[in-house]
Amino acid sequence: MSYFLRCISCGEEYEPTETRYTCDHCGDLYGTLEVIYDYKKIKLEKNFEPKGSIFQFKELIPATSHTAIDHSIGGTPLYKFKGLLGFEELMIKFDGISFSSSYKDRASIIAVNKAIELGFDTIYCASTGNAASSLALTAAGTSLRTVIFVPSTIPKGKLAQLLVAGAEVIPINSTYDEVFDLSLKIGREKGWYCRHSAINPYLLEGKKTGAYEILIQNDYKVPDYCFVGVGDGTVISGICKGFKEFYELGLVDRIPKVIGVQSEKAATVKHVFDNGKPYTPIIETVNSVADSISVGNPRDVIKACKYVESTGGYFITVRDEEIIHSVKEMARLTGIFSEPAGATPYAGVNKMVEAGQLKETDSVCIVVTGNGLKDTDAVRSSTEVKTYDIDEVKALFL
Amino acid sequence: MSYFLRCISCGEEYEPTETRYTCDHCGDLYGTLEVIYDYKKIKLEKNFEPKGSIFQFKELIPATSHTAIDHSIGGTPLYKFKGLLGFEELMIKFDGISFSSSYKDRASIIAVNKAIELGFDTIYCASTGNAASSLALTAAGTSLRTVIFVPSTIPKGKLAQLLVAGAEVIPINSTYDEVFDLSLKIGREKGWYCRHSAINPYLLEGKKTGAYEILIQNDYKVPDYCFVGVGDGTVISGICKGFKEFYELGLVDRIPKVIGVQSEKAATVKHVFDNGKPYTPIIETVNSVADSISVGNPRDVIKACKYVESTGGYFITVRDEEIIHSVKEMARLTGIFSEPAGATPYAGVNKMVEAGQLKETDSVCIVVTGNGLKDTDAVRSSTEVKTYDIDEVKALFL
Repeated sequence: MSYFLRCISCGEEYEPTETRYTCDHCGDLYGTLEVIYDYKKIKLEKNFEPKGSIFQFKELIPATSHTAIDHSIGGTPLYKFKGLLGFEELMIKFDGISFSSSYKDRASIIAVNKAIELGFDTIYCASTGNAASSLALTAAGTSLRTVIFVPSTIPKGKLAQLLVAGAEVIPINSTYDEVFDLSLKIGREKGWYCRHSAINPYLLEGKKTGAYEILIQNDYKVPDYCFVGVGDGTVISGICKGFKEFYELGLVDRIPKVIGVQSEKAATVKHVFDNGKPYTPIIETVNSVADSISVGNPRDVIKACKYVESTGGYFITVRDEEIIHSVKEMARLTGIFSEPAGATPYAGVNKMVEAGQLKETDSVCIVVTGNGLKDTDAVRSSTEVKTYDIDEVKALFL
Repeated sequence: MSYFLRCISCGEEYEPTETRYTCDHCGDLYGTLEVIYDYKKIKLEKNFEPKGSIFQFKELIPATSHTAIDHSIGGTPLYKFKGLLGFEELMIKFDGISFSSSYKDRASIIAVNKAIELGFDTIYCASTGNAASSLALTAAGTSLRTVIFVPSTIPKGKLAQLLVAGAEVIPINSTYDEVFDLSLKIGREKGWYCRHSAINPYLLEGKKTGAYEILIQNDYKVPDYCFVGVGDGTVISGICKGFKEFYELGLVDRIPKVIGVQSEKAATVKHVFDNGKPYTPIIETVNSVADSISVGNPRDVIKACKYVESTGGYFITVRDEEIIHSVKEMARLTGIFSEPAGATPYAGVNKMVEAGQLKETDSVCIVVTGNGLKDTDAVRSSTEVKTYDIDEVKALFL
């Protein structure tokens, strides 16, 4: 396979080496790299398996499977609902049904395989959430030692998942941002393989596959819009790249507008995008109920802004109450139980429908990135319900 | 499609009608019915989709899909591990990756479709766990009203899931057994469709499909043993029926011994089995950490005993500590994160290996019925871990 790495800011090209993560000139935040293939040489037919694993895209995945088992990651369902939110048809891609129950598996499986392929003995990340549990579970049973740095405030339930999977967990009495920076320093010093989507360019190559599958599962018909929740900016960057590559390869004739949806309480990527070019990272204090996308120092903001712009898309915000309402409404109307971050794009679609910015004939796809079981606390306020004695129930029904 | 219903105890045959659930002579506990097809008339090829939905088995599923969406239920992964627990190869069927994250979806989707097909407006069950959340989520978005009776002691998290999906939840200040009996009485009086696997004979027709898939995904090679966790006895009955039907239809040349695994603290089905024939239901006080199979009044005990016996299998018990240990060991060695009930058969295999009752060349399959995210409390005792200050971490690694 032939590919090289290219800086998202200055365009400098690099040969892939085992320790090349970001651009020498532009640094970690501006200098994230893209994996660029020789698209002219890649000839693909429209014969992909709708339920196949991501390794079926072997010409476009810079890693092969070296793990003990086929984790069957990828091939999650694309559900189609007639009449939902008033659309003739609304599509929902549901990655809550995945090996560790989130979209992050698509990236973790690349990182784990790449680390084994390159001969690393340790893989690490800093995360409190889905990326960490996905890494811990996909690396389990391999030769890799897994080290995960977390703020010591991590909820016990999430900590339990990491420990159960046998990861070495280092809880640190500090903020997430400090933990993240320290983890990078340690990882570089120790020569460990890095599973941070905004640092390691290969992880996006897993995250892009959700877009491939949307096109494949919709019989290569291109939606007008694709809505994605945004925190760090890596998932939406991956989705955009996936659409662009299938277009570049001639498998589809256009790309959807990709719309990033953030919480009003954590809208840093939108603020950077709206401030215009040159896109300039900022750090904000954030506090959204959608914990997986409550990010005030988004590490992939440059890539996210450039990629979304290139699709003709943009960013919008919704209120936290709208996100929680969307978790409930999606479950009630579709049976899809999402964590708050995963229901955020649904809230975005709903808002644009109400504002008359989408037509019922528009073809719209929503990406739901995590299972509702990840965070049942978020919907506990719904649990105020009357209890009955046996006799009351009899009187009520019999 | 041609089929009839037959009493598991007296063999009386019944024409299927919309309100026929159990045998008139033998009652609810002894008189559960089997769905019997005209196997001689069914000609099947070995060309099933390994990742297909259960509706691909249309000659053997007495319902068609009437729901708004294809829920893609079925086709969950069969993982194969070399060297695990000393076996040359150990297979794990993982239904934690399903629409509502448990094996119960296979039954719920039949019940929901059957209820719609027969023109019912309401479907109900009594459950505190996976059956209820599975019913609530698979019925969401359909024309059905869903009523779920629960003991008022139901944990808030589980209650939240049911309410989020829009089910009508009736928490009753009483025991599960009383709630169950009252629900049957109300359901019959009101003419609602019943989603109780041990009452409604069609639900087993969904539960059997896991066995079909094990055979299909193992290229029609038959395992020597299949291990299944047992509570009410319906899942294991379904698994046995699936194996037996593929044998009856000539798709495989033998059936595996099916081994039921229970907690020592909830082993009622094993006690009935070991007491010998005629199998006689008993009620016991139980209290296992594996809540999904902590059942003291198993409603499908007769079927479970007869079916397991017919495969040459039997029942064994494991200690609760072995179950929790298995949740952790499976996660660590395979990445599969299971709820305690789902890890119970793994504990059973481990116990038989240690006792020298299984050989490394035996072909063994384990059925994992629910996702670990369903019950993270069960592994929280693992969360005692030291926290560090930034400087301590630096001293440790840099």
